[in-house]
Order: sequence, then C-alpha cells, then structure tokens
Amino acid sequence: MSGEKDHIDYAHELDVAIKPDSTVPLIGKEYGYFSGPGVPLFSIGGGFLRQALQQILVSFHARRGYFIAETPTLASSELFKLSGHMDFYRENMYVFNIEDREFTVKPMNCPYHLLIFLSHLARFRNRVKLPFKIFEMGRVHRYEPSGSLYGLLRVRGFTQDDAHIITPEGEAARVISDVFEEMRSLMELVFGLPIDEGNVRLRLSLSDRSQIGTHFMGSWEEWSAAESALEEIASKIAEKYKVKVSRGVGEAAFYGPKIDLMMSLRGSSGVKEWQMGTIQFDFNLPRRFKIYDYVKEIYGDMNVFIIHRALLGSIERFIGGYLEHYKGRLPFSMAPLQVAIIAIKAGGELDVKVEEVSERVKRELLSRGLRVAVKESSRTGLSGDVRLLESSIKPPLIVYIGPKEVRESTLAVAVYDQRTGRRSNMSVKYGETLEELMKIIEEQEKSVREASGVSPRIPADLSHMV
Amino acid sequence: MSGEKDHIDYAHELDVAIKPDSTVPLIGKEYGYFSGPGVPLFSIGGGFLRQALQQILVSFHARRGYFIAETPTLASSELFKLSGHMDFYRENMYVFNIEDREFTVKPMNCPYHLLIFLSHLARFRNRVKLPFKIFEMGRVHRYEPSGSLYGLLRVRGFTQDDAHIITPEGEAARVISDVFEEMRSLMELVFGLPIDEGNVRLRLSLSDRSQIGTHFMGSWEEWSAAESALEEIASKIAEKYKVKVSRGVGEAAFYGPKIDLMMSLRGSSGVKEWQMGTIQFDFNLPRRFKIYDYVKEIYGDMNVFIIHRALLGSIERFIGGYLEHYKGRLPFSMAPLQVAIIAIKAGGELDVKVEEVSERVKRELLSRGLRVAVKESSRTGLSGDVRLLESSIKPPLIVYIGPKEVRESTLAVAVYDQRTGRRSNMSVKYGETLEELMKIIEEQEKSVREASGVSPRIPADLSHMV
Repeated sequence: MSGEKDHIDYAHELDVAIKPDSTVPLIGKEYGYFSGPGVPLFSIGGGFLRQALQQILVSFHARRGYFIAETPTLASSELFKLSGHMDFYRENMYVFNIEDREFTVKPMNCPYHLLIFLSHLARFRNRVKLPFKIFEMGRVHRYEPSGSLYGLLRVRGFTQDDAHIITPEGEAARVISDVFEEMRSLMELVFGLPIDEGNVRLRLSLSDRSQIGTHFMGSWEEWSAAESALEEIASKIAEKYKVKVSRGVGEAAFYGPKIDLMMSLRGSSGVKEWQMGTIQFDFNLPRRFKIYDYVKEIYGDMNVFIIHRALLGSIERFIGGYLEHYKGRLPFSMAPLQVAIIAIKAGGELDVKVEEVSERVKRELLSRGLRVAVKESSRTGLSGDVRLLESSIKPPLIVYIGPKEVRESTLAVAVYDQRTGRRSNMSVKYGETLEELMKIIEEQEKSVREASGVSPRIPADLSHMV
Repeated sequence: MSGEKDHIDYAHELDVAIKPDSTVPLIGKEYGYFSGPGVPLFSIGGGFLRQALQQILVSFHARRGYFIAETPTLASSELFKLSGHMDFYRENMYVFNIEDREFTVKPMNCPYHLLIFLSHLARFRNRVKLPFKIFEMGRVHRYEPSGSLYGLLRVRGFTQDDAHIITPEGEAARVISDVFEEMRSLMELVFGLPIDEGNVRLRLSLSDRSQIGTHFMGSWEEWSAAESALEEIASKIAEKYKVKVSRGVGEAAFYGPKIDLMMSLRGSSGVKEWQMGTIQFDFNLPRRFKIYDYVKEIYGDMNVFIIHRALLGSIERFIGGYLEHYKGRLPFSMAPLQVAIIAIKAGGELDVKVEEVSERVKRELLSRGLRVAVKESSRTGLSGDVRLLESSIKPPLIVYIGPKEVRESTLAVAVYDQRTGRRSNMSVKYGETLEELMKIIEEQEKSVREASGVSPRIPADLSHMV
C-alpha cells in the first residue's frame, strides 16, 4: 500500500505534531527537528487536542471514583531503588546527578502513586476506603534505541492515562470488570471504536505455575487468586461482547499476570493489532513498599492486590494509531478545528453581508468555546475549497454561508460522519441566534459528554490554517 | 511570629502536597520524602487543585486569543545551543546523554514556542495573524542549590503559566496593556486578590542606555521603543489603578527590559512582596532564531517584538504564597474539598433519615461534578467538628443536616467568605431537588467562570479525609 498516508502525515495536516523529519526554516539555514528524536513536539492543533483529551480523561476518571494526582517528573533514585527498578530497569532510565545525589527522569508513575496511598493510610487510617483508585496523566520517559524510534508510535517521552487500584482480594474481579467497562465506554463513546467480535481480542498473560516462586515472584495463592479473577472476567466479557480471548501461559511479567485489550485498527500498512488498555497485577511493589503489612496493621486481616491499569496506554501512540485508522478524522471534541465556515463569493466578489454573517457566526461560536475558522471561497468553486479542507485540517463541521443563505437566514451545514466516512448536508435556520447550529454541535459532543461528563470548550480562531 | 503556620502546613492540611520533611510509614522503617528535594509531590488534594487550575488557565487564555501548545520535557541540546542558553545558562540545566547525543530537561519553554511559530509561518505564510500568542502550562526544571530549596517556594521543577507573544512593534503597547488586564482579571476574579494602591507595585527593569550594545544586547531603537511602550502603559496603569511604579535603571536583563507585577501578601513572617506576573521583551531569541529576517521576508518591512509573559509565574510558588496569604483558604473552584456535609446526630444516634438525606445530597453533588465529603457529627457537639474541618481541609461550604433539617426539608449552609474570613449562615429549601444549594455553589463559581469561561467540575468523594 505504498503512497498511503501514515499517522505522521495526518498529524502534520492537522498541525497535531511537527513532522520529525521536517525542517524549521531559518534564513540561511534549514534547521532540523530540534526536539531530538523520540520527544514529539505537539504544535497548536496538538496542544488543543491534548488539553481536550486531558480534560475528558480527568473528568472521566473522577466521575468513576478515581482520585486525581499530579506527581513530579524527576525523582530521587532512592525511590526507584525502593521499588526495585534501579536493579532491573536502570538501563531504560535517564539518570543524572544533582550535587551529590542521583536523580532520574521518572520512567513510571507507580512509586509515586503508592507513596500517596501510604500517606493517606498514615493520616486517615481505616477511614480510607478500598478499593482506592488514583489516576494521573503522567508523562514518563524511557530509553528506546534511536533506530527504533518512529513518529508518535515509538518515542522516548510519552503520557500514560495511568491509574493504580489497591483493592481487597475479594473485590478484584469486580474491579477488573469495572475497568473493562471503562475501556469500553472510552473506546466506544469517546472515540467511536466499537468493542466487538471483529476487532477486539483479550490477551491474558499468565504464569507458568511450575515456575511460581522462581521465575514468577509472589506466592502461589496470589497468582492463583489473581489469575482466577482475570479468567472469570475474561470469560464473562467474551460471552457478553463476543470477543476472542487468548491465553499466554508463562507470558506474564515476573511480578504478576495481566489482561490486555488488543484492538485491530486499519493503518497505512493494512490492518494491525494494537495493544490498548491493560490491567496488570503487581506482586512486587506491595512487598517493596510493605503495603501488605501496612494494610493488615490498619484494616486487620485483609489481603489486597495492587493493579496497574491504563485505558489507552501511551497517549502519543494511541493518537498515532487513531489518526491512521480514521485517516486523520478526530472526534469533534478533540478536533483542532471544529467548525470551518466558508464564506461563498458570488461572481468573484464577497458580498458584504456574507462577510458580516460569516464573521458574526465565527464570533458567536468562539464565545461558546469552539474552535473555528473562516475561509473565503476561491474563484475556482467550492469543491476545490472543500477538497483542501478535507486533505488538511479536516473539520468535523463545515458551514457554508453565501448570498442565498443570507437571504433566507439559513446556514448550510455539512457534518462529517465517522462511521460512514461521509458528510451529510442539512440546512438550519439562523436568525438572531445560533441555537439550531448549536444543537448540531451538542449532538456531536453528546457521547463524549455522556461518557465523561464534559465536552471541553477550548476556543480558538484558526482562520490562518485554512 | 513564631508558631504561625507556613504554606507547607497549609499544603499538608489540604493534602495539596506531601510535606518535604514528612515520612512515609513503611513497617520497620520510616522512609523520608522520596521525590528528592525540590520536586514537590502533589497529593490528591493537590491533584484536584492543579487540574482545576490548569483547566481555568487554559480556558482563560484560549478565550483571549492564545493558542495552546504542549511541548516536550526533554530537548536535544542543539535547541538550547541555538537559543544561546547552552552558553550562558548551562550551569542551571540538567544535561545527560542518550546514546551519543546530548539532551537536556528543558529549563524553559521559549525555544519550543518559537519553533511552533516558525513552523506556522513556513506553512501558512502571511495568513498567520500578528500578534501571535501561544500559551502552555509548561513544566520546567532548573538547578537550585539544595541549601536554598524551600517547600513550594523554591524548587527545582515547576510549572509556568507561560506564553510568548510575537507582536508588531506598533502594537506592543496595546499588547502590554492587554496582558496587564489579564493579570488583573486573573488576580481579582479567579483568586480574589485585588490590584490596588495598598498591595501592588509595578517594577520596571530598564537598561542603562549608555551600555546598550555592550552589556545590553540589541539596538538602541529596540530598547527605546520597548521601554517607551513599557513606560507608557505603566503610567496609564498607575493612574487608573493608583498603584506605585518603580524604575530600576540598569536592572534589565541583558536581552531586554521588563515589567513585573509585585504584590504584597501576608505570610507566616509578616507582609512580603512577591513577584507575580512578568512581561519581558527579548531581543536575543529573535536574532538567534532569525525571526526578524523571516518576518520581513513574509510580511514585508515589519519590525516585531518577542514578549515572554507569565501571569502567576511558577504555579508551585504562587500556590505556596497564596496558601499563606489566605491561610489555606482556596477559591471554591480549586478547593480540594468543596462541600463538607455534616450529618448531625441527635442524642448520640444518627437518625436513619438524616443519614439517607446526607448520602443523597452527597451523591447529587457528586453527579454534578463537585468534591464532597460526609462526616457524622461527634458526641462532643458540632463546634468541635467544625473546628476540625477549619483546621484541616477547610471546605468553602459546610452543609448541616440534622433531624430539624430533615423535618423541615431544608439544608443549613455555612459559606466561607474570603474577604471577611468568616462564614455566613443560611438555610435553603431541599425537597426533591438541589436547586437552591446549587445556586449558592454557582454564586461561588461565578467570578472564575466570568474570567475564564469555566469553573471546572472534577468530582470526588473525599469522606475519608474529614
């Protein structure tokens, strides 16, 4: 499929990220991509997209009982010695000294989340309710060889929609089931990616029971209880949503079993399976942080599990995969440009009233928090203008305003439909108020709002980009 | 004033940040503060506060025509060689190698913002409108000696409400004036800190004209035009708001003059003047990035200025100063716990109906995106419970529900008033709906919403913290 656009092309068209191989034009010399490989530079389109996504994810999780944290980028190496990472993960970490003390750019958020849990236990004792759930949009950094770096898909700095759940053993199955439902809501309602037979597989990574205590750390009881909970929920999900389940015996990490949501997405090189969400047990960290003991001290005889989970995994990678799958079409709430207004010229001239109405609609949409642009139609006719929009910034809504619309107090609206890949055209009344257009927009925001409680309104006039 | 609480005490009470000297209790050993000095660990209260503040600031700026960016934490050292920082700022930067290439943890956002501006110029040419304004909540890292680190006030990793404005020379005065109005809206409407005679000084840092071209880089024309614009606006502001202006001749940075908003805040050691917002000209970066030439190539004969500006400066430091000034009272929209519900026992027993109504009110507030907690009154009477709340989590609203309230279908509400430092009591009807209580809440959110377009709703049940 050569010649097909890849996610970097779409990211460039939408101004989501600056192409890694693009140059920044300075007079006299063209400079290369300065971020350095593996640390993608989100541009203005990408800035809006990321803020919108962050607001959606924060609200999504807060409404499901997750506490929200924000932990540092750097950490004293001591913290990652305690967690064990300095022993078995150091080669993937960026480490340097400040004065005579060693610091690291955090490669993961877990140790910080556990510190917060512990500090809450220490202060609030058994008033802390379990399961305890803590979420962060956490930017982490890990070494990747420069040869393997690729666009947004393989990077050295990325953001996880990361959460940790400390749950009583007996509630682990319910927790896993809830997290799966979160994945489903997020994928289906926020991103329009259905969870069904055709495109989803659950991948269980289990221990080889004969190696528990050697290759796989922790007790037989832990592995057994955790893997039963995973199996139980995987079967229920498989039955309910008709998705496949595969089992990798012996493929678990040394610290615990997991279940991954594998999703098939179309891409520039055909359909590919992506690892999206993950639910992982961890029997290492609670020992390292003495959480089992501390929990027993406070709650009496209670066994808990620590579960890592992410719904999207790496935001950067997810955006990359999504851009290829939907050929650069983003959900309305996250699209850099949400509404393009085309002011139609008649006979090569732009009517003053057409210009006025176009500007007024733009201002009203801006004041409602939407990202808009006005573009004058070119001499060569509308189809060229639309083609240009569709091959660049791809606004979910195009509003046409010409002499006819002004005369009839209407707006012609073309709404992109992610499922069909086409626009449907409609005409709405526009007198003194924008209400009918706003109804169309609210319809676009509806499922995101249903899932997360918000559809962020972060306005911008992006007229220079169309 | 010994014995007075400082910002770290308040941060601890509100669960905003974990005290740098506090220990995390692991059985058998008490561990110290693991983040390492200078990288404050925001806990759950702090996580909600920071997300709310970020949403407010992003919306605040987007509504004022700033584009939103999100740039990497790391950068190839090449970028900071180009900007010049590697020559004159390297000792403050954290630098390390990945493979054979040098990287730095970014100490500032400016170079990235300029790259984005340049990439927009290259793609969209003169359709890019000036002034061009780009905003980021940018986390930066700079070396501070360990001996000078102090709580949230002096740290090694902090977040700037950072923006860069590229403006035609002739519009510089208007831009400065607009930024001052932004400062004023943010301080007064979002944080309830009035800008007036008593507590604000504008500090101009100007060149010594005799040293332009030697100590101060750039041309006489640049300095002259920039300093005139600063002087003009400072005089207007001084007249309009009756604030003092001071001039530091020769105190400008080598790269340009600036104006700082100095604000007097009460603190644990008396009233102190803080540097809040800053508006700085930069004559170095545009030369380094060849922006003057490139702008001329695209717009014809046009001189532009590059202005750095921040309204709060370091978010961490601002929060610290604010906590001391208002003794741990945060604006409603950012308070970790927004509404505490006290379920009042009668005769040592909690009436079932009181419990039911309390839980119902909690659930309804949660579903509206608010952060709430339910606390049963203790045997010793309400005053002790209230004292405890006021000396810990400090909710802006306290709602009392007892047998009397249940009987009369009312809620007793005590609303904290930042200006008077007292609570005013009122009684609202509560039948089937929460409407009257929501009116009080919306009143609390009103000025933040007026300034920024939003009052974030990021819900949480924080009952374990009361």
